[in-house]
Amino acid sequence: MQANTPFQEEAINAIRFLSADAVQKANSGHSGMPMGAAAIAYTLFTRHLRFNPANPKWFDRDRFVLSAGHGSMLLYSLLYLSGYEKMTMDQLKQFRQLGSLTPGHPEFGHTEGVETTTGPLGQGLAVAVGMAIAEAHLAATYNTDEHKVVDHTTYVIAGDGDLMEGVTSEASSLAGHLGLGKLICFYDDNNVTIDGMTTLAFTEDRAKRYEAYGWQVLYVKDGNNVAEIDAAIQLAKADPRPSMICCQTVIGYGYPTWGGKPASHSGIPSKDELEGAKQALGYPIEPMFHVSDAVLTHFREALERGAKLEKEWEERLQNYNYINPEKGAEFRRIMAGNLPENWKDALPLFPANEKGMATRSVSGKVINALAGVLPEFVGGSADLSGSNSTVIENTTGFQKGSYFGRMINYGVREHAMGAINNGLNQHGGLISFAATFFVFSDYLRPVLRISALSDTGSIWVFTHDSIMVGEDGPTHQPVEHLAAVRAIPNLVTLRPADANEVSEAWKIAIERRNAPTLLALTRQNVPVFDREKFASANGLEKGAYVMADLGPGPVQLVLMATGSEVELIVKAAETLAADGVSVRVISMPSWELFEMQPKEYQDEVLLPEVKARLGVEAGVSMGWHKWIGTEGKLITIDRFGASAPSGILAKELGLTVENVLRKCRELLAK
Amino acid sequence: MQANTPFQEEAINAIRFLSADAVQKANSGHSGMPMGAAAIAYTLFTRHLRFNPANPKWFDRDRFVLSAGHGSMLLYSLLYLSGYEKMTMDQLKQFRQLGSLTPGHPEFGHTEGVETTTGPLGQGLAVAVGMAIAEAHLAATYNTDEHKVVDHTTYVIAGDGDLMEGVTSEASSLAGHLGLGKLICFYDDNNVTIDGMTTLAFTEDRAKRYEAYGWQVLYVKDGNNVAEIDAAIQLAKADPRPSMICCQTVIGYGYPTWGGKPASHSGIPSKDELEGAKQALGYPIEPMFHVSDAVLTHFREALERGAKLEKEWEERLQNYNYINPEKGAEFRRIMAGNLPENWKDALPLFPANEKGMATRSVSGKVINALAGVLPEFVGGSADLSGSNSTVIENTTGFQKGSYFGRMINYGVREHAMGAINNGLNQHGGLISFAATFFVFSDYLRPVLRISALSDTGSIWVFTHDSIMVGEDGPTHQPVEHLAAVRAIPNLVTLRPADANEVSEAWKIAIERRNAPTLLALTRQNVPVFDREKFASANGLEKGAYVMADLGPGPVQLVLMATGSEVELIVKAAETLAADGVSVRVISMPSWELFEMQPKEYQDEVLLPEVKARLGVEAGVSMGWHKWIGTEGKLITIDRFGASAPSGILAKELGLTVENVLRKCRELLAK
Repeated sequence: MQANTPFQEEAINAIRFLSADAVQKANSGHSGMPMGAAAIAYTLFTRHLRFNPANPKWFDRDRFVLSAGHGSMLLYSLLYLSGYEKMTMDQLKQFRQLGSLTPGHPEFGHTEGVETTTGPLGQGLAVAVGMAIAEAHLAATYNTDEHKVVDHTTYVIAGDGDLMEGVTSEASSLAGHLGLGKLICFYDDNNVTIDGMTTLAFTEDRAKRYEAYGWQVLYVKDGNNVAEIDAAIQLAKADPRPSMICCQTVIGYGYPTWGGKPASHSGIPSKDELEGAKQALGYPIEPMFHVSDAVLTHFREALERGAKLEKEWEERLQNYNYINPEKGAEFRRIMAGNLPENWKDALPLFPANEKGMATRSVSGKVINALAGVLPEFVGGSADLSGSNSTVIENTTGFQKGSYFGRMINYGVREHAMGAINNGLNQHGGLISFAATFFVFSDYLRPVLRISALSDTGSIWVFTHDSIMVGEDGPTHQPVEHLAAVRAIPNLVTLRPADANEVSEAWKIAIERRNAPTLLALTRQNVPVFDREKFASANGLEKGAYVMADLGPGPVQLVLMATGSEVELIVKAAETLAADGVSVRVISMPSWELFEMQPKEYQDEVLLPEVKARLGVEAGVSMGWHKWIGTEGKLITIDRFGASAPSGILAKELGLTVENVLRKCRELLAK
Repeated sequence: MQANTPFQEEAINAIRFLSADAVQKANSGHSGMPMGAAAIAYTLFTRHLRFNPANPKWFDRDRFVLSAGHGSMLLYSLLYLSGYEKMTMDQLKQFRQLGSLTPGHPEFGHTEGVETTTGPLGQGLAVAVGMAIAEAHLAATYNTDEHKVVDHTTYVIAGDGDLMEGVTSEASSLAGHLGLGKLICFYDDNNVTIDGMTTLAFTEDRAKRYEAYGWQVLYVKDGNNVAEIDAAIQLAKADPRPSMICCQTVIGYGYPTWGGKPASHSGIPSKDELEGAKQALGYPIEPMFHVSDAVLTHFREALERGAKLEKEWEERLQNYNYINPEKGAEFRRIMAGNLPENWKDALPLFPANEKGMATRSVSGKVINALAGVLPEFVGGSADLSGSNSTVIENTTGFQKGSYFGRMINYGVREHAMGAINNGLNQHGGLISFAATFFVFSDYLRPVLRISALSDTGSIWVFTHDSIMVGEDGPTHQPVEHLAAVRAIPNLVTLRPADANEVSEAWKIAIERRNAPTLLALTRQNVPVFDREKFASANGLEKGAYVMADLGPGPVQLVLMATGSEVELIVKAAETLAADGVSVRVISMPSWELFEMQPKEYQDEVLLPEVKARLGVEAGVSMGWHKWIGTEGKLITIDRFGASAPSGILAKELGLTVENVLRKCRELLAK
């Protein structure tokens, strides 16, 4: 292969030393990865990546995901060099400082040009699979033979850590199955992890594994050689399979004593080490953060290239709109992330019904109603689509050959499903949900967190939300999960009490495009409350609301519950009221939404002056003391469940109207 | 291959129809898997598995793990047929009923003969890797050329769902790396998952993937043929690599309309379907739960075989003890799960020290002290052994060729690490810990839960336990994690405030052999408190304790904190006391241990009558209202962190003595 020119070397070194200088200045960070992978990034950004630094949100841009997120300075250096306006030299100098655009790990929504939040290993590649699915789906849905209005590639740089993580395995297997040919991953194969060489724990045949997944595997023997990298990218683009380009790189390339060694992974280079590297690679030692005008000009050709690419696309889109006005308008709308007018009219209302329905079944009806009016609405389940009631009837599966399908069969891969769900929602143009049993939300907890951290509108549908799962037993019965998901900041958890609350819950979820929403739904039937007798279910949007004050006089007793346990407090309240006790019934589907309300509303609902208070929930007590005060009581489940028919288990664990009544009487006797 | 004899067919059918009858009777459960995999289990249990039904806990038994745990009736049928005393016919008839030994999914500790808890997919195979590591380690440590006192094999049956899960990929890659030749897995390759055929989402080349991991891959074309299965097992045993035996099976084999179809996965067979299957396979339709005497006698030969095997082993062990009295005594001790006398003397005490130490560093010292007196103590980290301070100095890595090593390099595989940690602790003979950053406890949450659910003494070491991680930013800063782990029943979380609390915390962890313990440790230094001035750190064993009452008179103000925030309340209390305010300082390292104390002790510590109360913790507020009451205040972090130097971040988020003082003065002014 042709050797790099001196100018190419200088440009690559600019990436290396902006990164290393920033790490040294911050006295914190990871320069080994940028030093080793700079040539890959250089080749990609200057020769292949279709993007417009002047419009980081250009819809049809190629996506670049730095899965090895600890190498964040690689990305920030590239954003600066390529001419992203907000990524100034000053920002590079503020690396890892409070409020900068250059945090320790890349954060989606915080820094323009960062396509997803990475750092927790494995997330990037899995999210990228979601982006590639989004591209394939939108292309299949909107492109015509004449006009390709969606046509972009998703690129990833992943390291050894990424490839060891299970979420990567799951996502890669699915990507191979789906034949996502526009997904191209560079494997930064540098033989080093934090604890030492990969010989310590990672000696599998990675290439063979990716072949087994159905990927094209390519090799770059010298990860510093532009021509070789370039040739591999061209092969990757030409193949219908996803491609894994295995690049032999040297971590901390250039460092005189650290090169190729674990020390360079996250060590802070000393003066000698850094200057030695600059000397070895022929880069000016002074000043720090040096970039020559010629190199900067070269990188910033991206602005002109990008403007041209975007303009061509805009013209294509205009022609497309002219020929396909309806599709075109819809495409414009979904790109802008706007909901269609009157979409809420599709949300079903449910008449009172004592026998009732499982809230998961209601959710299935709502999903189908929404799918009818929201073409951007997609989703899937981790092999539980029947149980989760997430089958969308008027579409087919998203599969090789049917990318227009809106239903994703994730297989038994909860973690990858979650990351892909984030990728689908971060890509733009889609509203995506992911579903499994609530107990298995644990399997995807890392990405649940990232959806919240990155202000991503992912929707999480978790059914079988309590011990009422019954016979499947404690491994399948969530008890701590409500507390665990409520603990995540910026995530709204909704546990609707009946069919109409489910409809309201979905309304919230669809509207929350910049933060995630979680629906916890029952396996078992719950009654549909008579909303002429009880307050409207749209009280749900305030998180908690008074369903009714029952009884003759001022409230003596406050009953609070969520989801399926609202039935218990309603029935108990009716009995007590008949006995002349005045009882308030509060449905609390979302603590988070309730906490966003003004204090006056909260007090108005809670009546804190009433000390006789009972909270009922089929989960651990954690968090409930905020609502019941020091004198209140709880019916909760502070233990694991058991395998038994659900009715028997409910009795065993005190989830009965009788037990609620018993506790109420204890409170009233005080 | 030789066809099965009619008697073999009858014996295999006994497994099938005990399972199917139980599912039909319970009107709940999964019979498709047992129907399809019965011949595999039959061949294994009658020809290869070295076990003694009369002593389910015989130390040197082969382990059998049903990773496809939903097929639990397969296992229960085998336990009954093989003569496990407590697994009576009545228990089979009580399948999935409250209090039975036959819950929906197999539960470790609940049912003798169940080696680990399975059901959540992927767990079984990963736990089995832990058991195979335990065997290899104990064999390398205790066996001599003359006497093999540890010599057993770990067998697994895994399904498509298991093989899709990321945790399985992680664990399998590590098993291949480590060359765990005594791990043999049957892949129940039946092409069916809940949502449909595997063509929906799982078309990768599984065999090639396992070859890439370094496993021997074997094939059984007819998963109902005993001779073929037997031959494969023999090849598997003879090979130094872990073996994956891919068995072509038919889910719901025998069901007239369901055979080979997804409906048989978890459908309840109708009368016609079940009777049709019996007819098709030539099994008596009546009575239900039929097993012929001949078949039962055949299976129960396991009792005689097992007694002989155990006796031979006991003799071997006696000879071994005679020649190696010291090793022999130690081996007997660790098998019994007893701790050596005076082990606690090794726990270090730390003198007061204002500059202090990071609690993770102290933990490293304690780990090494414990390793010196507890040969059964092993552990490892997910590629963060330096950062987690979990390097054991006086040993080497557990690697191919050095199985005697006590330090496990898990690679960047948190989830598999967690499952393996459970396997190591469930195997017997070892006390094992696993370590990573606290924020990445999310990656292994499913197995954290299982350790608690299954009463397993796994130790979890989670360092970098707050936003004081600093520059790495919000992706690496736990905020909701304390709440999330406290929500798990039966898990004790310990967040020690200083070096001496760390020592006490490790004491608790080592002693809790039948339930898991989690240590949350700081990245940053915290002072070592002067225990002459403050109460002894062994107050930790009660979960919370009064460190000091400072000031002139009766307590006016109660300050509570955990971990690194105890320093803040101590300093604030000293300032307030100097101003004449009487303050109580409570260190609360473990809410769970505190909740186990009698009410009198709790009240004695908390002084609930004092309404001016402040809780300080670098995490979300969830759960704290239980301790501060309705009039108390909190300094907590109900948002994600940010990337910045930790001191600056602490100030930004109010984790300062000044802010504590401000809140105290607000409380006092009320």
